[in-house]
Amino acid sequence: MSIEATFSMLSLAEPLPSGSVEVKSLVFKPKTPKSQTPVPIIVVAKKDTKTASKLIAQEANAKDPRLARDELTTQFFGCPARKFTIALLSAKHKDTVKVLLDSTISDDEATEYVISNEEGRLVLTGKQLVGFLSTFTPKVVDFSKAPEAKKAPAGGKSQSNKVTKKAKKISSALEDAKLIGVTVDKNKDFPGWYQQILTKGEMLDYYNVSGCYILRPGSYTIWEQIQSWFDAEIKKDNVRNAYFPMFVSSSVLNKEKDHVEGFAPEVAWVTRAGSSDLDEPIAIRPTSETVMYPYFAKWIRSHRDLPLKLNQWNSVVRWEFKHPQPFLRTREFLWQEGHTAHLTAQEAEDEVLRILDLYEKIFNDLLALPIVKGKKTEKEKFAGGFYTTTCEGYIPTTGRGIQCATSHNLGQNFSKMFNISVENPAGSDKPKLFVHQTSWGISTRVIGVMVMVHSDNKGLVIPPRVAQFQTVIIPVGLTTKTSKDVEEKVFDTCKKLEARLKSDGIRVATDYEQYYSPGWKFAQWELKGVPVRLEVGPKDVANESVLAVRRDTGAKSSIKLAEIDKKLPELFDEIHNSLYKKAKDTFDAHRVVVHTWKEFVHNLNQKNIVVAPWCGRMECEEDIKKESATTDSGEEFVVDEKAPSMGAKSLCIPFKQPKLEAGEKCVKCGQPAVNFTMFGRSY
Amino acid sequence: MSIEATFSMLSLAEPLPSGSVEVKSLVFKPKTPKSQTPVPIIVVAKKDTKTASKLIAQEANAKDPRLARDELTTQFFGCPARKFTIALLSAKHKDTVKVLLDSTISDDEATEYVISNEEGRLVLTGKQLVGFLSTFTPKVVDFSKAPEAKKAPAGGKSQSNKVTKKAKKISSALEDAKLIGVTVDKNKDFPGWYQQILTKGEMLDYYNVSGCYILRPGSYTIWEQIQSWFDAEIKKDNVRNAYFPMFVSSSVLNKEKDHVEGFAPEVAWVTRAGSSDLDEPIAIRPTSETVMYPYFAKWIRSHRDLPLKLNQWNSVVRWEFKHPQPFLRTREFLWQEGHTAHLTAQEAEDEVLRILDLYEKIFNDLLALPIVKGKKTEKEKFAGGFYTTTCEGYIPTTGRGIQCATSHNLGQNFSKMFNISVENPAGSDKPKLFVHQTSWGISTRVIGVMVMVHSDNKGLVIPPRVAQFQTVIIPVGLTTKTSKDVEEKVFDTCKKLEARLKSDGIRVATDYEQYYSPGWKFAQWELKGVPVRLEVGPKDVANESVLAVRRDTGAKSSIKLAEIDKKLPELFDEIHNSLYKKAKDTFDAHRVVVHTWKEFVHNLNQKNIVVAPWCGRMECEEDIKKESATTDSGEEFVVDEKAPSMGAKSLCIPFKQPKLEAGEKCVKCGQPAVNFTMFGRSY
Repeated sequence: MSIEATFSMLSLAEPLPSGSVEVKSLVFKPKTPKSQTPVPIIVVAKKDTKTASKLIAQEANAKDPRLARDELTTQFFGCPARKFTIALLSAKHKDTVKVLLDSTISDDEATEYVISNEEGRLVLTGKQLVGFLSTFTPKVVDFSKAPEAKKAPAGGKSQSNKVTKKAKKISSALEDAKLIGVTVDKNKDFPGWYQQILTKGEMLDYYNVSGCYILRPGSYTIWEQIQSWFDAEIKKDNVRNAYFPMFVSSSVLNKEKDHVEGFAPEVAWVTRAGSSDLDEPIAIRPTSETVMYPYFAKWIRSHRDLPLKLNQWNSVVRWEFKHPQPFLRTREFLWQEGHTAHLTAQEAEDEVLRILDLYEKIFNDLLALPIVKGKKTEKEKFAGGFYTTTCEGYIPTTGRGIQCATSHNLGQNFSKMFNISVENPAGSDKPKLFVHQTSWGISTRVIGVMVMVHSDNKGLVIPPRVAQFQTVIIPVGLTTKTSKDVEEKVFDTCKKLEARLKSDGIRVATDYEQYYSPGWKFAQWELKGVPVRLEVGPKDVANESVLAVRRDTGAKSSIKLAEIDKKLPELFDEIHNSLYKKAKDTFDAHRVVVHTWKEFVHNLNQKNIVVAPWCGRMECEEDIKKESATTDSGEEFVVDEKAPSMGAKSLCIPFKQPKLEAGEKCVKCGQPAVNFTMFGRSY
Repeated sequence: MSIEATFSMLSLAEPLPSGSVEVKSLVFKPKTPKSQTPVPIIVVAKKDTKTASKLIAQEANAKDPRLARDELTTQFFGCPARKFTIALLSAKHKDTVKVLLDSTISDDEATEYVISNEEGRLVLTGKQLVGFLSTFTPKVVDFSKAPEAKKAPAGGKSQSNKVTKKAKKISSALEDAKLIGVTVDKNKDFPGWYQQILTKGEMLDYYNVSGCYILRPGSYTIWEQIQSWFDAEIKKDNVRNAYFPMFVSSSVLNKEKDHVEGFAPEVAWVTRAGSSDLDEPIAIRPTSETVMYPYFAKWIRSHRDLPLKLNQWNSVVRWEFKHPQPFLRTREFLWQEGHTAHLTAQEAEDEVLRILDLYEKIFNDLLALPIVKGKKTEKEKFAGGFYTTTCEGYIPTTGRGIQCATSHNLGQNFSKMFNISVENPAGSDKPKLFVHQTSWGISTRVIGVMVMVHSDNKGLVIPPRVAQFQTVIIPVGLTTKTSKDVEEKVFDTCKKLEARLKSDGIRVATDYEQYYSPGWKFAQWELKGVPVRLEVGPKDVANESVLAVRRDTGAKSSIKLAEIDKKLPELFDEIHNSLYKKAKDTFDAHRVVVHTWKEFVHNLNQKNIVVAPWCGRMECEEDIKKESATTDSGEEFVVDEKAPSMGAKSLCIPFKQPKLEAGEKCVKCGQPAVNFTMFGRSY
């Protein structure tokens, strides 16, 4: 039987066992920055042991501990401070609290100790007590000694000169204790914040092969949402799914020179199987143009076989040696790659833009992300293609642009390499026609962009249309004083609500676990970014309503149960729209049209993206990158060694162009400008 | 303008150009086995050239060519023999006909030649004519010479002693001419048949990396159907999808000894990226137990974290060095792998069987395949697991068993290796509990089993519930005499029907291409295995009905348009059920209970699976394999070098057991039998 269960069974009426000693369990809160979650210090000591906070500070290696207010104890243990006892500690607290144990207790395991609050009593032998606390790797402290002088290092190790062996053993583990919640500020340590919300929000985990990451259900479900929407859309466009092998022979990979040069440095090679070496190394696809196109040539014989539109959902490998980053730069990533072949250039052009518009919808309508559509410069286009169109996003915290999805017009370059041609409709005696091709892809990278843009210091903020759970139902306001009848009504309402919302097709999570306090649960589900929390308490039941709390704004609104099927989806849309608007306003405010090089650099340093008249020459683009780098403080870019000096790259030539005045000069070289181009530091 | 188009423009009224020469185009049919599609021989010669069939036979390297009947010309060219002219040849016929060209034509390119049938005339210079025919790599023949004596080799090369250079050039290509349709008999050359229906049915293509194959939409869609059904089912069971990396460090891979020994010989190793060698070779997952379980250990801390149920849809690599076979044995294959962790042994056991039952439903209810559920022997179980349950199928043509899907109970073996444990609910002072795990998978292999069981000599037969297209609409009965009005009515009916069926959620293909004859279309769609062909002709339109033709039986039935939404799905179920019944009856008839070794071997050679009383000893299983091999003719097993001598393996210990009589002896060694075990030659 667990100690929690035993606890309630002892009535206050019973007399204390003779020779038993009363024990106090106190909660202290160390001084903690607002942006961080404090780590409570639990002090378990004999009632009459004096526990000087100076000593606690030193032993727990914490700053200015003070007796915790109800606010903290409620968040962690679901009760006011006066009601706290160690019986409320569970495995969940293992890494989230520090425990200090009075050495006079651990030294005396035979004695019976009494732990009590106003509701009941618990009687344990010292052995049981120490055994129970061992889960929390307590530090055994001799409270009788004086705290050390300031100058001495405040070490984690106990300075006690009378500690039991066991105490020594368990106290050494204390340094491992981890923190829950987000402990860094998005604006102060962006990379640290990003890593914490992804891992603590249970979206992703780090893997023991560098550059590879585990997509947990929290993020994979978002990918599934994108998949199911986009897959349905391209099927309407008669695109069909297929699967081509992940392996490419080097001869095929090398067929298209520019193309392979673009990828060769990042190609992973299989050279061995079992214990035998392969005759010829085999590459893992970095993308599938050269994998697919020999078969396009085989399958396409007549213009009646056109258009051919294939897509595959797969993973590709690009062994980058730069600093990897979850979602944004990974050595293996999930994506979709579409490949189409058309009879005419016009059809190919139309396909490229049709797909780009679908991508835009994914960003705007699913991920609540604003993007700028445009064309890549020659320098930045897809290697081997004719031209590349793109959706470019923006990360406000770093002020950097990020490529979100691209749709390429390959023209006839690959079809000539791979001889993908059809007989001339004008007659078999006329020369064959080479097909016009497109390829296009969107990857799990977009999940990272979504997280970076919307999430905050409380954790993830996930737009409702892609969230694994769109809402979580949590019973509240149940205390030990609540009558069984009312309690049942509350849980009954929760379960009916759950069933009803699920039948509406809403993705619902519930947290009926009675052991945890609502406050604790709120924090957990906020960390995971669930868009709407539905609180159901006795009052709500009485009013036949629930309290809806928005994750993004914290705004609360009471919703009548009778209207929930209508109101909740409306609330989801409201949340989606305000997330999108907020992100769009920010992007718009940080996208500045400039005409001079001085403004150009100044705005980059203001974390802006610039749109400038440009000459379109590759050498000029090189200059821009070089010279815009020098003035970079670099501070917030250290995460990315892709370009440590972080000069500005061209992001795209926006489809929506400011008016180019006659005689307008290039922002950098002063030669005649051919268009406005969007530049920025980028990922 | 294409030659076809030009053709109709010349009226018979116009006088022939002076000096023009009339040309005849004749269609010959070589003697061809019923199971195969004939390759028509088109003879293009001056009207008065004698074309001896002996000479045609020799030059076309064909058997007993005879003037083709309307049946053949309709199938290939959509017209009776008398209406045929070369104007009906198009690129589609490139590899499906042989063309013999009168050398007196190719020698005289200046002359104008007149080609006519009862509808019109076409006038071409010899140059144009030869140019047009060159698409079909004609063989230039001097019909004036005598056929060779029998003994001389009937070679593809022209024996003509007066052939133009051009003729020499183009005639050499003739040997490459391929055949359409299935040209081998399922029962005579099973491997050849299997390869042909997969490639010609456009389900799969061979790839230039051995052991890897391309899944074209025809097969990938079947996988999508299986995915969407199974994915929904496991989500009801609260299994959540995730994605773990494809790479495994060797240290992690080697953690579970038995397990790694089972896979090591087939593991593909990445040793190089770009041009630099990796510090440590990295494996590509053959399966993900060792990839996932270190993280199970990290994520599972308390019994409140259980059960943990994860699944992923991915591809794995097993670099087999045995003879690869499409779907059945490939070096990369698509599958789903589920991995669950439970607090109790009972929960794990329940999960194993719950999943096995879902697999059974995939076979019975989607793929129309009968299977036998049972437990694997120690020798055949999953390496490192506790025990393995399986769905075992049967391929009638070879009489071999085939493993279709497995669900493993891993017990606590992996949880102890990876230290996946939770605190003891009986108290933190009690020893930790190691979790009980399961893993389970089904792969694209099942598509191969489905094809081998149901398909026939006309091509693929796909069960309706998984078919890419469940039905194809083909307009019929339209001739040049059909009035525009009637023709429009037919096409209008087709399109209305198409829209209506699609809105019913039925997967519909259409073939409105007016250039091809219905007969030709029928053959094409039968090759692809579309379950139901809907023919719409003028009569049907008049009767407000369509003619439904079953792919599996060829049975025809007229369906009133008013009832189609109801009747067509019913027909699909009918087809599914009869496919399943046929396969089940066959499997049942070939699963024989035997008690003596003599019966055992005899039945194997009758292409049966045997169920025999067995002692359960591994050495005995080895003996059975060795001694059952000797008597194997081997003929139909050459495709599989996995076990060239092809002895019998244990397939499973069926859950449904015949009654084991007291004192029953092992079929092989005579020791006491512990159960009935199913043995068979297998894939």
